[in-house]
Amino acid sequence: MTYYPGRYAPTGVFVCFEGGEGSGKSTQSRLLRDRLAAEGYDVLLTFEPGDTPVGKEMRRIVLSPETGVLAHRTEVLLYAADKAEHVETVVLPALERGEIVITDRYVDSTLAYQGAGRALDLGEVEEVARWATGDLRPHLTVVLDLEPEAGLGRFEGRDRIEGESLEFHQRVRQSFLDLAAKDPDHYLVLDARGPVEAIAEAIAARLVPLLPQARQEPGR
Amino acid sequence: MTYYPGRYAPTGVFVCFEGGEGSGKSTQSRLLRDRLAAEGYDVLLTFEPGDTPVGKEMRRIVLSPETGVLAHRTEVLLYAADKAEHVETVVLPALERGEIVITDRYVDSTLAYQGAGRALDLGEVEEVARWATGDLRPHLTVVLDLEPEAGLGRFEGRDRIEGESLEFHQRVRQSFLDLAAKDPDHYLVLDARGPVEAIAEAIAARLVPLLPQARQEPGR
Repeated sequence: MTYYPGRYAPTGVFVCFEGGEGSGKSTQSRLLRDRLAAEGYDVLLTFEPGDTPVGKEMRRIVLSPETGVLAHRTEVLLYAADKAEHVETVVLPALERGEIVITDRYVDSTLAYQGAGRALDLGEVEEVARWATGDLRPHLTVVLDLEPEAGLGRFEGRDRIEGESLEFHQRVRQSFLDLAAKDPDHYLVLDARGPVEAIAEAIAARLVPLLPQARQEPGR
Repeated sequence: MTYYPGRYAPTGVFVCFEGGEGSGKSTQSRLLRDRLAAEGYDVLLTFEPGDTPVGKEMRRIVLSPETGVLAHRTEVLLYAADKAEHVETVVLPALERGEIVITDRYVDSTLAYQGAGRALDLGEVEEVARWATGDLRPHLTVVLDLEPEAGLGRFEGRDRIEGESLEFHQRVRQSFLDLAAKDPDHYLVLDARGPVEAIAEAIAARLVPLLPQARQEPGR
């Protein structure tokens, strides 16, 4: 396995969606996948946590309200285990095949939810999450920014993380914005309340310079 | 939760058993528990991985042959999650109550099996395991040293870790010896092939100066 500490895969394009609950990450990541696939690219749409067999079990444990209280470090390490497996068995192989990998959540979610949300030492949480992923970075992270009140309002039956306090979710939101502000070359922050199509257009426009020449004709 | 980076709990006594498969860790840890309890101490006998609800699930995943291949980092992080939960919810509360905590495996097993065994960067694995446990150290670690050929020979139906190569288990053995050699004040290395009673006596003798005055009369 090749690792890219603090760097970007030399083949493929790695795009990540981040944001709070109800901000439209899965809608936008699907729209982007469909658009790129229609343009002839090989696209893999994936997500964290839970898109590997062992990740599925981690996801169940961390999100199920039945799990009850977990030590904060336990939670960080479970998410990190999911990431390690996801990067090694799903993300890197696809990038090495030259594909476009779109992931719904990645390292920034751990920094935001477990670092800022749980008020653990952010530097320490980052070290664990970076080690888990071999410090592979997305070429572009799209942050869909939304007030927690608006996003959380859409759900009944919240999971273990969604059920945290409003203050928790406000720290999470601010954390995504801070991460984006520190590295504007690799982030795109969009107001999640905009029309779905306008958001999709803005993402596609920002992505164009990162894409290799399409390998197939549209509509093939 | 109190953390003790690189240090020892100020109350209670934390004793750890380490060693390869079939070296007699569970026999000796039970004998020590029974002996100390008979002398009137409050003793908690515990183990890693798997002595918490979430740890049980980690244990099943890492040890079950059905799990198949896991990324090496995934394995480290699953063991670390088990440790984080174990220290915060089991070990530290008992030490804070002044009890003697005896654990069958702890951080050294991760360093030996995932660091030396899997040939990952030992410094990085150690950082993850130390972070998981708040870097709480045992007052005494007993290493029951045994040639892998002898220990593994005793079992049919090996689990995922036991089923690794002989070279893997030889690296594991050497790793335990190296850890002990670096910190002789906190380690006791014993030949696991000795008579069970003689080993138990040697452990008890080494432990005496670490014990607080017994709080109850023997035989109460």
